Amino acid sequence: MHARDFAAESLLIEEEPYYQPVGSEIALFEAAYASQIPVLLKGPTGCGKTRFVEYMAWRLKRPLITVSCHDDLTASDLVGRYLITSNETVWLDGPLARAVRCGGICYLDEIVEARKDTTVVIHPLADDRRCLPIEKRGEVLKAPKEFVLVISYNPGYQSVLKELKQSTRQRFVAIEFGYPEAELEKTILMREAGIDARTAEKLIKLAAMTRSLKGNGLDEGASTRLLVHAGKLIARGVEPRAACRGAIAQALSDEHDMLVAVDELISTLF
Amino acid sequence: MHARDFAAESLLIEEEPYYQPVGSEIALFEAAYASQIPVLLKGPTGCGKTRFVEYMAWRLKRPLITVSCHDDLTASDLVGRYLITSNETVWLDGPLARAVRCGGICYLDEIVEARKDTTVVIHPLADDRRCLPIEKRGEVLKAPKEFVLVISYNPGYQSVLKELKQSTRQRFVAIEFGYPEAELEKTILMREAGIDARTAEKLIKLAAMTRSLKGNGLDEGASTRLLVHAGKLIARGVEPRAACRGAIAQALSDEHDMLVAVDELISTLF
Amino acid sequence: MHARDFAAESLLIEEEPYYQPVGSEIALFEAAYASQIPVLLKGPTGCGKTRFVEYMAWRLKRPLITVSCHDDLTASDLVGRYLITSNETVWLDGPLARAVRCGGICYLDEIVEARKDTTVVIHPLADDRRCLPIEKRGEVLKAPKEFVLVISYNPGYQSVLKELKQSTRQRFVAIEFGYPEAELEKTILMREAGIDARTAEKLIKLAAMTRSLKGNGLDEGASTRLLVHAGKLIARGVEPRAACRGAIAQALSDEHDMLVAVDELISTLF
Amino acid sequence: MHARDFAAESLLIEEEPYYQPVGSEIALFEAAYASQIPVLLKGPTGCGKTRFVEYMAWRLKRPLITVSCHDDLTASDLVGRYLITSNETVWLDGPLARAVRCGGICYLDEIVEARKDTTVVIHPLADDRRCLPIEKRGEVLKAPKEFVLVISYNPGYQSVLKELKQSTRQRFVAIEFGYPEAELEKTILMREAGIDARTAEKLIKLAAMTRSLKGNGLDEGASTRLLVHAGKLIARGVEPRAACRGAIAQALSDEHDMLVAVDELISTLF
Amino acid sequence: MHARDFAAESLLIEEEPYYQPVGSEIALFEAAYASQIPVLLKGPTGCGKTRFVEYMAWRLKRPLITVSCHDDLTASDLVGRYLITSNETVWLDGPLARAVRCGGICYLDEIVEARKDTTVVIHPLADDRRCLPIEKRGEVLKAPKEFVLVISYNPGYQSVLKELKQSTRQRFVAIEFGYPEAELEKTILMREAGIDARTAEKLIKLAAMTRSLKGNGLDEGASTRLLVHAGKLIARGVEPRAACRGAIAQALSDEHDMLVAVDELISTLF
Amino acid sequence: MHARDFAAESLLIEEEPYYQPVGSEIALFEAAYASQIPVLLKGPTGCGKTRFVEYMAWRLKRPLITVSCHDDLTASDLVGRYLITSNETVWLDGPLARAVRCGGICYLDEIVEARKDTTVVIHPLADDRRCLPIEKRGEVLKAPKEFVLVISYNPGYQSVLKELKQSTRQRFVAIEFGYPEAELEKTILMREAGIDARTAEKLIKLAAMTRSLKGNGLDEGASTRLLVHAGKLIARGVEPRAACRGAIAQALSDEHDMLVAVDELISTLF
Repeated sequence: MHARDFAAESLLIEEEPYYQPVGSEIALFEAAYASQIPVLLKGPTGCGKTRFVEYMAWRLKRPLITVSCHDDLTASDLVGRYLITSNETVWLDGPLARAVRCGGICYLDEIVEARKDTTVVIHPLADDRRCLPIEKRGEVLKAPKEFVLVISYNPGYQSVLKELKQSTRQRFVAIEFGYPEAELEKTILMREAGIDARTAEKLIKLAAMTRSLKGNGLDEGASTRLLVHAGKLIARGVEPRAACRGAIAQALSDEHDMLVAVDELISTLF
Repeated sequence: MHARDFAAESLLIEEEPYYQPVGSEIALFEAAYASQIPVLLKGPTGCGKTRFVEYMAWRLKRPLITVSCHDDLTASDLVGRYLITSNETVWLDGPLARAVRCGGICYLDEIVEARKDTTVVIHPLADDRRCLPIEKRGEVLKAPKEFVLVISYNPGYQSVLKELKQSTRQRFVAIEFGYPEAELEKTILMREAGIDARTAEKLIKLAAMTRSLKGNGLDEGASTRLLVHAGKLIARGVEPRAACRGAIAQALSDEHDMLVAVDELISTLF
Repeated sequence: MHARDFAAESLLIEEEPYYQPVGSEIALFEAAYASQIPVLLKGPTGCGKTRFVEYMAWRLKRPLITVSCHDDLTASDLVGRYLITSNETVWLDGPLARAVRCGGICYLDEIVEARKDTTVVIHPLADDRRCLPIEKRGEVLKAPKEFVLVISYNPGYQSVLKELKQSTRQRFVAIEFGYPEAELEKTILMREAGIDARTAEKLIKLAAMTRSLKGNGLDEGASTRLLVHAGKLIARGVEPRAACRGAIAQALSDEHDMLVAVDELISTLF
Repeated sequence: MHARDFAAESLLIEEEPYYQPVGSEIALFEAAYASQIPVLLKGPTGCGKTRFVEYMAWRLKRPLITVSCHDDLTASDLVGRYLITSNETVWLDGPLARAVRCGGICYLDEIVEARKDTTVVIHPLADDRRCLPIEKRGEVLKAPKEFVLVISYNPGYQSVLKELKQSTRQRFVAIEFGYPEAELEKTILMREAGIDARTAEKLIKLAAMTRSLKGNGLDEGASTRLLVHAGKLIARGVEPRAACRGAIAQALSDEHDMLVAVDELISTLF
Repeated sequence: MHARDFAAESLLIEEEPYYQPVGSEIALFEAAYASQIPVLLKGPTGCGKTRFVEYMAWRLKRPLITVSCHDDLTASDLVGRYLITSNETVWLDGPLARAVRCGGICYLDEIVEARKDTTVVIHPLADDRRCLPIEKRGEVLKAPKEFVLVISYNPGYQSVLKELKQSTRQRFVAIEFGYPEAELEKTILMREAGIDARTAEKLIKLAAMTRSLKGNGLDEGASTRLLVHAGKLIARGVEPRAACRGAIAQALSDEHDMLVAVDELISTLF
Repeated sequence: MHARDFAAESLLIEEEPYYQPVGSEIALFEAAYASQIPVLLKGPTGCGKTRFVEYMAWRLKRPLITVSCHDDLTASDLVGRYLITSNETVWLDGPLARAVRCGGICYLDEIVEARKDTTVVIHPLADDRRCLPIEKRGEVLKAPKEFVLVISYNPGYQSVLKELKQSTRQRFVAIEFGYPEAELEKTILMREAGIDARTAEKLIKLAAMTRSLKGNGLDEGASTRLLVHAGKLIARGVEPRAACRGAIAQALSDEHDMLVAVDELISTLF
């Protein structure tokens, strides 16, 4: 275990992350970056949004600061706050201010989970003003041209209470993510889980079946990540059916009938 | 990246912002300003309300202080608060108090998003008392005649919970904003995105189609800002259909059927 | 811009405010004041409640302390709180305690907007105990006979959640306010907006039409204040129809059909 | 204006409060006091519950501490809290702890308005344990036999959300209050408002009419307090009908039809 | 009045509390205590749960710490917190930690009223881990074998929102309490209220009638405690019917019809 | 009673916990541990999830840190916070940070009870980033390969409001727990409660009956833990029927009809 501090250089992704492009997402991201328009990534969990951002950070050689958004994330958590210590009062930049200062990529993951003040605080950064007012310091940070704001969310989860307001989403260029094509997914599985082509194909067939059940008893189909999990367990010697039950079926659902149905799918494949 | 402090002179807009008048909004704003009546801007996102305020600030040569309102914005955030440091207790003016002191324009963007105490705190500033009581300091700030309060909101979003109370709105002169006429919008697009007239016309046709879908599957039509985004991507070499999908279709909606429909509109145009 | 501190003498209204009596409200207020019974003002926004209180403060030569109530106004905001500075802990009287100490008029505007603890904290001041317990200081302030509590609210807004409890309202003598008679309103308009009699009459006719729409598409009719706004814009050279649209129609409603209807009314008059 | 501190002797009621007994309430209170059982007063606003407690405090020669309960009243507000000053940390007894220490009467007015923790904190004081645990000081106060807890509420207001739990109410002996008999009320009115017998009789007739409207358009009928208000205004020279409208009709209701009806009642009497 | 500190010895019940066993509750409690299984007491208000715990504390010679649970009781209130004074930061054990340290009985009265974090904080103490993690001190308290956790609740009050979770209740041995048999209740009444056998019998008949009305207009029947209250008032000379009305009828209900009905029951008995 | 501090060595389970494997759960856990995939345990209360984690901690020789999740558990409670003492400001690692630093097992029991920010804070630890950003210190903890995150929940309790999001659950390999087979449960009962085979068999029959009532009047059937409780009471000499009523029937339900039914089951067995 070792601590990494937040200095800009340490936030650079040094090694090229393994990323398989699905369509024109790289070109679109680069054009938005060059035009200084922020980017919105849409798509289900486990389909590679986070990996894509890491890849683009490596490609553009920009520091990456990731924030997992949640119900209690406030504007101060993003912008910064004063910290009272016994000797002095110190200002501590939040991740958004840090990213602006160092001209990095600020990635707000699952933005719709955050409180509304968080989505509003990014507005002046997300239009052509490109500035971050830090009220508490009486300071306005002007973003350098290298700074880019990236947000993501999963449209499948959006409820009325947690939807992205038009005044927010109309500030972004959007890129949609889905599950990779079968051939591409097979390549990913073999490389990431260390399994053979046949096992990978079976897992992908299983995934396709669960994905077709989305909306018919399953909230989501099996993501590529789940297939990697099952593959890794199999590679460690776990019996394939047990691996698929633990890493895929049980991870997807708690419904008894659905679990029986997925178990049958598993038995027909392995 | 450089920090700009809040001293009044530094809040002046030095360069004339690009603004194309739509109707008599400039005359109306100037008469209200001269009569010391506050101004309310109404209209959808991305139609130029913020740009208009920046333009008027430049024209009237007044410092501009903008506040993006949100659920957690309190009266103290606007008025000011005591800051306890290790050596002393310092009063820090909020943006509203700062604007009053320097006789500037205080622009509260999306006022209905703020908590109710925020809308009440502006009442004494918004009638002929024109003063801001700062309870915590036992002080009453009297606004100079140059000070003007500007608020904005999007009537399309107003829910019962978040509507502007009559006792608030009846304190303002209201100016309504909409999308610019086609000719005007074309001029804006060509200048801001750097595209040719033909591409601009196609984008405007696409916008008109989405705007007619408002209330029939779309919450909002494409704003001028979205057209500028698409234009910029096209100018950077992105294939026009991909640019329109990312900057317009995906930015407007997550609904599969609606996305297919907008995609067809795009294909008939490009 | 100059700061006025809260010393009692500085809260006196030095100049007679322009106030046109509507009925026996002055006699009723003076009898309640002499009997040490608190006063409740009822009526729609913009009909002169605040001006009336300022007038009575001037007439009775009592300091006036006004508090705009809101959702987050707590009992401590009214009564006072300890302020911790680096050197010492200082007690800061709230506006209610200040008004009691200096025998002034404490005017709580839109009382129903305040939190319930606020309405309860005034109970001992509003019956024959006439005292304000300051729990945090272990002190009970006894109100001098000059002190009077005045509260206001708009019955048109009262929801079930925000109604004045019987145990509160039965402590007050109530005075109802409405729109002034046509002749009186004309005098007010000509004096406050600096317009001629004919324009004033037209504005009053327009107001009467909107007031008859109250409950039929409008939450409120145009108040006298709105007419003054329109008049001032006209006096500044704004075209009368544009002035009425901005200062009256758009200030009253966002509904498209209603705006068209009010616009037609405007066109028949100007 | 003079401050009265909370030392036990200063909380004694020195002068006999004017109180007209309605039934056996004095005997019942005295027996409960002698048996060390707490007392619950039930009844509508303005019928003399507070005056009765003041009278009993005078009669039993016990200090009286009154707390108006509200939504934000916490257990700490009642029991006490530490106060951090710059030099030291001081414990400040809340009103309940003060009353226990000095063997006084603690009167919690409108108890159902308080938060639930408040009603629970009185449980150990309200059964035969008769003690108040002060968790924050690690101290248990044992109540002396002179201490008595009195609570009140208005059954007419009780909603499902704000009812007194059985585990609370079954700890008290209950005394119900209503409006006084006509003869008694006449005596009270003449003495408190300084009016003649005929005016008093008319006011009582008016009160009886409004009381019969309770539940048929009025939430409450006119309390004795309202009659005293009207009487005082009349004694000050206000025209009787105007006095009744301001002090009774407008204080009871905002409904136009109801106000017209009560106005007619007033006109038939005066 | 004298303060008792929380040192373990001072929390011992020195005198045998008057307790009449109803069934095998003493044996069951002792076996659970010896097996180090926590105990859950169920039953309506006023039937002796608190008295039973005091009796067992005396019998087992263990210090007793009682906490009345409520909506705002947090885990920190139970476990402890740091207290910042001007000179140092002191840790203050909460009642639960105190009880664990001194091997006492911790009695959480009306546990379902507490916030959910409170019920979860007792889980590690309520299974065979028998430990209390104090996160804030980085300390795990191991309970000595003499420590026992007792909780109580009234099943009659349980709403969906406030029910004991299975993961909580399945950690306890449960003992149910009801009203005592008539003979036993008579003995209790005569001893506690100091009344003769005939009066006691009449009160018990009255109680039986009200208990049969539970669910038919009454939330609860009259508890033994209410009978003791009525008996004490009668012993002090209050007329029996007035005593029963104040101590029983009015304490049970506010409904006019129900009060008339109970009054008739009272009149047939006394 | 003795305090154990949180140093890594002291969190090791020194003695082998008594654990009877039910299926392939040990192999699955070990493969997930070796693959650095986090583990999700599903199953009803009292079926041994906590014991299993303790067993795996002993087997893998890793320190175990357990957190009982609840409504008020925040991200700061897990990650850590600054503690202001009078002399200095100290950072206090939360249990999650502690577990990461010492390469231990962090077990979040009943994760769905926690606030949403808690489930999000574990995301970067639960995918291949395996890091814990500590925003307040500007530090990113990288988890050593020995660290493993384990969470548990009871699918039977999941409500719409408290379900595990797909973006969370798809990060884990899931292991499902149920009640042990009869033979195994008998072995457990005899060993843990110290009862003979016949009594254990009767208890297991009783459990089976209650388990078949799940969803038909019972929220849950009797867990193994409840049988151990009843067995222990019987071993202490409590009459078997009374033991079963207190430890099983009353612990499962408050419904009168259900209690009568379970009592009859008990009577037919003992």
